[in-house]
Amino acid sequence: MSDTAPSAKPAGSSPANTPRIVILGGGFAGAFTARALRKSLAKRAHIEVISDRNYFVFQPLLPEVAAGTINAQDAVAPLRQLLKGVTVRMGEVINIDFDQQCIEIAQGSKRIPAKRYYDELVIALGQRTVLTRFPGFAEHSFCMRDLADAHALRNHVLQCLEHADVTENVELKARLLTFVIAGAGFSGVETAGELHEMLDRALPAYPNVRRDEINTVLIQRSAHILPELDPALGRYAAEKLQKRGVDIRLNTSLARATGTAVYTGDGECIRTHTLVTTVGNGPTGLVETLQLPMQSGRISTDRRMRVQDHVWALGDAAYVPLDDEGAVSAPPTAQFAVRQAKALAYNIVAKVEGREGRDFAYKPRGTMASIGHYRAVAQVLGMRLSGLSAWLLWRGFYIGMLPGLSTRIRVALNWLFDYVLPRSIVQVNTKTTNAARVVHYAGGDVLFAPGQIVDGFYIVITGSLESRVPVDHHVDGPEGQLEDQPEGRREDFVRILGPGDHWGERSLTEGTRTFGSLTAVDDCEVLVLGRTDFAKLNQGLPPFSDYLQRIPEKIYPPALRNDDSVG
Amino acid sequence: MSDTAPSAKPAGSSPANTPRIVILGGGFAGAFTARALRKSLAKRAHIEVISDRNYFVFQPLLPEVAAGTINAQDAVAPLRQLLKGVTVRMGEVINIDFDQQCIEIAQGSKRIPAKRYYDELVIALGQRTVLTRFPGFAEHSFCMRDLADAHALRNHVLQCLEHADVTENVELKARLLTFVIAGAGFSGVETAGELHEMLDRALPAYPNVRRDEINTVLIQRSAHILPELDPALGRYAAEKLQKRGVDIRLNTSLARATGTAVYTGDGECIRTHTLVTTVGNGPTGLVETLQLPMQSGRISTDRRMRVQDHVWALGDAAYVPLDDEGAVSAPPTAQFAVRQAKALAYNIVAKVEGREGRDFAYKPRGTMASIGHYRAVAQVLGMRLSGLSAWLLWRGFYIGMLPGLSTRIRVALNWLFDYVLPRSIVQVNTKTTNAARVVHYAGGDVLFAPGQIVDGFYIVITGSLESRVPVDHHVDGPEGQLEDQPEGRREDFVRILGPGDHWGERSLTEGTRTFGSLTAVDDCEVLVLGRTDFAKLNQGLPPFSDYLQRIPEKIYPPALRNDDSVG
Repeated sequence: MSDTAPSAKPAGSSPANTPRIVILGGGFAGAFTARALRKSLAKRAHIEVISDRNYFVFQPLLPEVAAGTINAQDAVAPLRQLLKGVTVRMGEVINIDFDQQCIEIAQGSKRIPAKRYYDELVIALGQRTVLTRFPGFAEHSFCMRDLADAHALRNHVLQCLEHADVTENVELKARLLTFVIAGAGFSGVETAGELHEMLDRALPAYPNVRRDEINTVLIQRSAHILPELDPALGRYAAEKLQKRGVDIRLNTSLARATGTAVYTGDGECIRTHTLVTTVGNGPTGLVETLQLPMQSGRISTDRRMRVQDHVWALGDAAYVPLDDEGAVSAPPTAQFAVRQAKALAYNIVAKVEGREGRDFAYKPRGTMASIGHYRAVAQVLGMRLSGLSAWLLWRGFYIGMLPGLSTRIRVALNWLFDYVLPRSIVQVNTKTTNAARVVHYAGGDVLFAPGQIVDGFYIVITGSLESRVPVDHHVDGPEGQLEDQPEGRREDFVRILGPGDHWGERSLTEGTRTFGSLTAVDDCEVLVLGRTDFAKLNQGLPPFSDYLQRIPEKIYPPALRNDDSVG
Repeated sequence: MSDTAPSAKPAGSSPANTPRIVILGGGFAGAFTARALRKSLAKRAHIEVISDRNYFVFQPLLPEVAAGTINAQDAVAPLRQLLKGVTVRMGEVINIDFDQQCIEIAQGSKRIPAKRYYDELVIALGQRTVLTRFPGFAEHSFCMRDLADAHALRNHVLQCLEHADVTENVELKARLLTFVIAGAGFSGVETAGELHEMLDRALPAYPNVRRDEINTVLIQRSAHILPELDPALGRYAAEKLQKRGVDIRLNTSLARATGTAVYTGDGECIRTHTLVTTVGNGPTGLVETLQLPMQSGRISTDRRMRVQDHVWALGDAAYVPLDDEGAVSAPPTAQFAVRQAKALAYNIVAKVEGREGRDFAYKPRGTMASIGHYRAVAQVLGMRLSGLSAWLLWRGFYIGMLPGLSTRIRVALNWLFDYVLPRSIVQVNTKTTNAARVVHYAGGDVLFAPGQIVDGFYIVITGSLESRVPVDHHVDGPEGQLEDQPEGRREDFVRILGPGDHWGERSLTEGTRTFGSLTAVDDCEVLVLGRTDFAKLNQGLPPFSDYLQRIPEKIYPPALRNDDSVG
């Protein structure tokens, strides 16, 4: 495949002295650096942005996308349309060879490798959510980083409402209507506010859900929400949210999560199907492997954002010192990333033109947070604002920050529509149930009750589960197999499943429901292979189906072997 | 779980004589029946719509969603907001017990079963795409039935453009820029027109893609496109599309498809990554199991849309005779479904009120099809229209058909925006690569070339593959393992893989690229388990990992056993 051939000239030998500047990442830091470079250098440099998505995400608007206030398309801008004159390459960077000044990219759906050489490299890869400190969070919580996250949260919340409206199981309904947001910084507070407003406005469509059944919980480790703001503003925001019914838990740490509960540090269990996490930042996978000097999980740079010769870093991915001692660094906010982008572009242009660069310095103008229902808090040029005026300022500010006139018009109109028209509650199914996934359970959790449809093949990774088939497990109807009941079996058939043991294969193979139950004995991690994938593997991989066919002799007592009803 | 308990009264015993009318399906047929019933009966009946999605899809607008002309949200309407006063229950119907007058539903993400009793049952489940006649089509083509289909097609086409813009592999680029639409009825022609317009407008953002490199192919079995319309209009549409560069293949049947090609009945191979299928209708899975009288794959009804006592059917799912002989039936179009809904509601109300119902009869007013670029063809009240006037009529007609004022305003504004603003090219990654999928290959297809990243575990289902590790498979770099090369091995190591054999396990386990190649010997079906799922199963299921560890001794010659590079 010629895709694997080096597709650019070796380092340093650009034609006509056109330096090749490669920027990794298309967020605030990367996109604004590319734009500033293009403006200053025009065609005197080849500028290339490499991003694993072809669009720029306006992250501060993601809570509004999740809430349905604005369309998903309007919180993003296509990089190619945003960065005219800049080469945009969609692909995932898999390796950087600093000696050869070459990066390797996986392109296309088949991830065919390709190489790109650079004269100057800008690392603007941002951070990713790292939740290893909280068992179960990675598998069971929603983030608010990308468009897909906002989408997933929105559809999940609507699915919860749909199910809550029709279920008659009181406990299940309570869980479905409890929404937990972990972390009360900007992202957490805005998500809580927007989500609460969304639920409020969706309720008229769900006649069996009462307002007082909805429970929104905001968990914060410290003593204040919005700790980045003046305490008075934090208090104002907290009061407003509480008055609307948001349950704010201050001084509360997080411990772990399952698919149906969040556990706090002091041992409380909040039963919920919806956990949104806005905490836990760490370096991206690639940055971790680069062996560059790091500080607090970010790439160390000098005050000019230089990492080493020909390599620069900025934005959330970089630790950019604000003083000579390196004790204070730029915070990981969009505002700083945009300022750094301009400063970095200046320094690269200076290098290209043989001039001296300059240190990064910036004092932020202000900060603000929307709390939903046309209210916000803001701190601008030393003034504190709250309520509707702050909210209008917030909206105006974001409209101004949006890239491109067309996006601005669309967002403004969306906001206007949202004010006058009912909020849409369309729930788009995200068919994630087919892929293998890891699920956490806490001791006592019931995975399956008799009569339920088995949705996958359950394999224990850690902990243990109890499989129980009751004596009287016959059920009427054609599947009942009353005749097959072994005579004289008068005790439940109980089996404890440990790591490597599995459950569900017989129901899946025979197409029946389970007549038994499955319960977690203690905290455990379970790998679930969806029913479709299970069927495909069973059909296609002989060792897998052979193994499954040999199970009955190994596991079940003779009386149960011909019975379709176990597991 | 109390969810499994019968949640309604037994049949026939509704309180205060309120009949319970249950409608299965929320498309044109189901939603409009519910609306008409509610209007006539008000609170004199309990009306419930059961649908596996919580929204109504305006199918004729799906090509516009795929093309990005309108937002996904605007081609749909939430059933709960559309059907005020009607109970909407989201769930999948898994069984109907006609004797007990009871249906069973799987609800929520865990598919917990629930029962609903009915006095009158309306089956409006539509049809599904059945592609069993064309091997490979089910796995490798896009449909245009639901919002998710339009979404998937849009993101895929944008991904093709992104990849075509950066690849230097000429053959791959040609395949990426070839788009094949199978079937030239309304859906196929509108999709071809809209897709072509979308590509045209996206091109300025892709500097390395020339207009003449794009190849849109429309395949039609019969001698005319739009066979439902007057031949003159079909010819007009065909001429317009051809002038724009759409390659129309008439009298061409379809044979089979792989991930990289479509084969026609006369043996031609069109290399492409994008196949859109608008042919092949069949009953839904549930309808197939019901053992009701069927005709042409649809449920037989009498002229009043009655299937049997207490059971009715309409829309695409039903064969509703238009004469007493039953030789002519209502065609499966939205227009007929809406008319049938009104007639069926009349008949159910008549039954409730003890009056006589009436036969369904309707003569369609007109038909039209948009062909993109502000052109359409229409046949209305006996008149033929084409060009801009037909296009304006088409738009006006659909605006009028849209449910709800807010959707109308949004769609109208979207259309206006689309006229004046650049079309968005945001590509949202649909991470489908992690689930197990079946892929078809034709003899000679290269699945992997040396040096590529292995994206999954490949298991042969039918046909055969050739795995070849070249003699000189050492590559520089740390992964090369030059020292491990067996001395004196001067021939490629070739292995033929048949059903049940697999490939890729070693590269996946060791995290290396493949140094060998994998090629299809003849036509074959392959089950691909994504790398993430493979890793999870390898970690969690001991029999699977044990099996993988035993492979080297069984498959490879001794010299290759310690070599990470095979597969």
